[in-house]
Amino acid sequence: MNAQEAIQRTLADIAARDGDVGAFVALADAAQAQRECERALAGGGALQGLAVGVKDIFDTAAFPTSYGSPLFAGHRPRSDAAIVQAIRRAGGVVVGKASTTEFAFLHPTATHNPRAPGHTPGGSSAGSAAAVAAGLVPLAVGTQTGGSVIRPASYCGVVGFKPGFGELPTPGLKPFSWSLDTVGLFTADVGTMAACAQAISGRPWARGLKDGAAPVFGVAWAYPWDELSASGRQALERAVAALRAAGATVREIDLPAWLGPVFQAHDAVQGWEAARTLADEYAFGRDRLSPILRDYLAQARGITDGDYAAALDAAAAGRAALDGLFDGIDVLLTPSAPGEPPAGYGSTGSSSWNRAWTLLHVPCLNVPGATGATGLPMGVQVIAPLRQEALCLKAGWVLEQALSRPPREGRDPASGA
Amino acid sequence: MNAQEAIQRTLADIAARDGDVGAFVALADAAQAQRECERALAGGGALQGLAVGVKDIFDTAAFPTSYGSPLFAGHRPRSDAAIVQAIRRAGGVVVGKASTTEFAFLHPTATHNPRAPGHTPGGSSAGSAAAVAAGLVPLAVGTQTGGSVIRPASYCGVVGFKPGFGELPTPGLKPFSWSLDTVGLFTADVGTMAACAQAISGRPWARGLKDGAAPVFGVAWAYPWDELSASGRQALERAVAALRAAGATVREIDLPAWLGPVFQAHDAVQGWEAARTLADEYAFGRDRLSPILRDYLAQARGITDGDYAAALDAAAAGRAALDGLFDGIDVLLTPSAPGEPPAGYGSTGSSSWNRAWTLLHVPCLNVPGATGATGLPMGVQVIAPLRQEALCLKAGWVLEQALSRPPREGRDPASGA
Repeated sequence: MNAQEAIQRTLADIAARDGDVGAFVALADAAQAQRECERALAGGGALQGLAVGVKDIFDTAAFPTSYGSPLFAGHRPRSDAAIVQAIRRAGGVVVGKASTTEFAFLHPTATHNPRAPGHTPGGSSAGSAAAVAAGLVPLAVGTQTGGSVIRPASYCGVVGFKPGFGELPTPGLKPFSWSLDTVGLFTADVGTMAACAQAISGRPWARGLKDGAAPVFGVAWAYPWDELSASGRQALERAVAALRAAGATVREIDLPAWLGPVFQAHDAVQGWEAARTLADEYAFGRDRLSPILRDYLAQARGITDGDYAAALDAAAAGRAALDGLFDGIDVLLTPSAPGEPPAGYGSTGSSSWNRAWTLLHVPCLNVPGATGATGLPMGVQVIAPLRQEALCLKAGWVLEQALSRPPREGRDPASGA
Repeated sequence: MNAQEAIQRTLADIAARDGDVGAFVALADAAQAQRECERALAGGGALQGLAVGVKDIFDTAAFPTSYGSPLFAGHRPRSDAAIVQAIRRAGGVVVGKASTTEFAFLHPTATHNPRAPGHTPGGSSAGSAAAVAAGLVPLAVGTQTGGSVIRPASYCGVVGFKPGFGELPTPGLKPFSWSLDTVGLFTADVGTMAACAQAISGRPWARGLKDGAAPVFGVAWAYPWDELSASGRQALERAVAALRAAGATVREIDLPAWLGPVFQAHDAVQGWEAARTLADEYAFGRDRLSPILRDYLAQARGITDGDYAAALDAAAAGRAALDGLFDGIDVLLTPSAPGEPPAGYGSTGSSSWNRAWTLLHVPCLNVPGATGATGLPMGVQVIAPLRQEALCLKAGWVLEQALSRPPREGRDPASGA
């Protein structure tokens, strides 16, 4: 099967199966996909005609772009977002737009979780995570302002990668919070992620992925934002045991005291900026916003300058102190989400395990495979220092390999010690 | 005259006089301006119906928005940029769109320099600077990626303020380089600037503007990007002499060695990102780009990942070392541009005196009034540490006051010592 046939088969597959998933809100027609595929193959990019789903928070000239809001129903941007052009240049074929919560906030989409029927896929990049989880596309693009890549990846049991802030191009993304909005990717496994992220970014992030010594992993058992849930603890213990069984070094660390204020600071940064970013929609389209977003923006308008300035100070201080956090370790492991995906579709879950890292601008990767107490997907998050995307992916690959081996007999994989 | 009458008079004045200036590319009609003025006054914002010009690089639902490019002729965005909403919320009335060079790069606009007939107004925020210089509006909005606020302000003899990166909201700005694009403002004097910047930002940047001890000014006589021109030296010497005559402390400093690599790094950061940001326009509209932009993007596609990564490293190292640069001084003074505005309209001049500061993300302010060797406008740039916008404005106010006094007899104002 050549690339053209593969793309057409992908479209047919999505048409046949996405009714049950609800991952896509717009699809290429056959002729459009053929043109895009010809262009992708002619460019010789490394992705070689790979089918890609793009979160509907990015501008696309070839697809309607509604940012998950009725205010933009039928909107057709004049040009493509930079990430769409980067995908095309890398040889990828955008086959459709994946669902996003309204303006990438919390109002749920109609998307189902292919790995946890009856449970939320998470948000805001719901369609991107679900499309990869359902095997509809091998690669999808999302964004994270709080936990909108890592959380849905964890809930849907796929790999989600949020590189550092600004590492993948943001132009043409409908902004929510300009100090936080970060472009990320979804794939089924870490090897595919590294190859795709390298091809799209043009950065050597896949270099040395499977070579050399394993990174030193750090793990903490107490966090400033929440206690470990039973599922979070089980996933983390399983990851630690698997890494140790595979010969990797895992060090237990205490998280620095400044991390709590950084976590708290995320609220003020996001709210202050969102109130300004969506000021037009709030002023002229308030009645067509969801109640959860309308109330959030109304409340966010009350965040004081002092709150915002103090939050930026806390973030800057945290970034300046990151060397201390990573002292003696290469990467940090935490749960990717509070637990397994919540039941039902009324909420997309909580970003509490992601917000501080988003504000710190560090690369984060969800590695699936640890599973929670109920057997539903529960991911482990690999967090690396600023600008260490390659290290983040390498550590994720080591963890993925370790988790794929069966636990040894005679050893308690949940000891955590 | 009430605010409504003032706005209508402003529109009539622009209609009568802008033919000679060419600052505006779109104007409100009377009914539109009246509605906007009613809304501004009803909101009770501090600007109280002040007329504002907005660079045509920002999305506006009420005006066509072409980003200075025929590729977007007649384009009408669905929503307003965040800065437009911030102006409205502050009580400002957007009366029109000010000319921008093509996508805020170097291809000149048809704008003339009201303070230097026959000379460029600079760019890319040409219309914004010229509109304020001609007295058509008291406040205009621009952007700076290299030197696109400070340079046209210097050439047009007005105050230009580029706060730190991300300090004024960027959503709805047509991006060029996402690590550099910064929103800035133009006014006739520093007091108006501080009041307007505070009202629009919601930050206490005007607090203490005229109170307390004068900041300690630093001045350097050697720079890594260029030698001081005769006009640059004259302007700087005049500023130093005026400050000392007014009782302020001015310390001579040597600039740190890392500033040269930061200056060099700007090229790679801007080029790498612009090649990705304008990838759609390059792919599908290359024949309607100006030669200067087309050639730039073609060349920028060749910037390697290694160049970009090294440039980001240099920028990060510079930001981390800024405390050392400001050791013993509060703010730094440099020329705002290589010299007076170049003759003719074929070039918008050079951003060499601005690029490093833009990449470092620090606040910069052009203070006019020093004049160059030819008597044409030649501004002095006040540079403050990160997050010190209020200090930058306060120092600018002190300098503006000092420059407004006639030089004392019996003292050489150009001694610089």
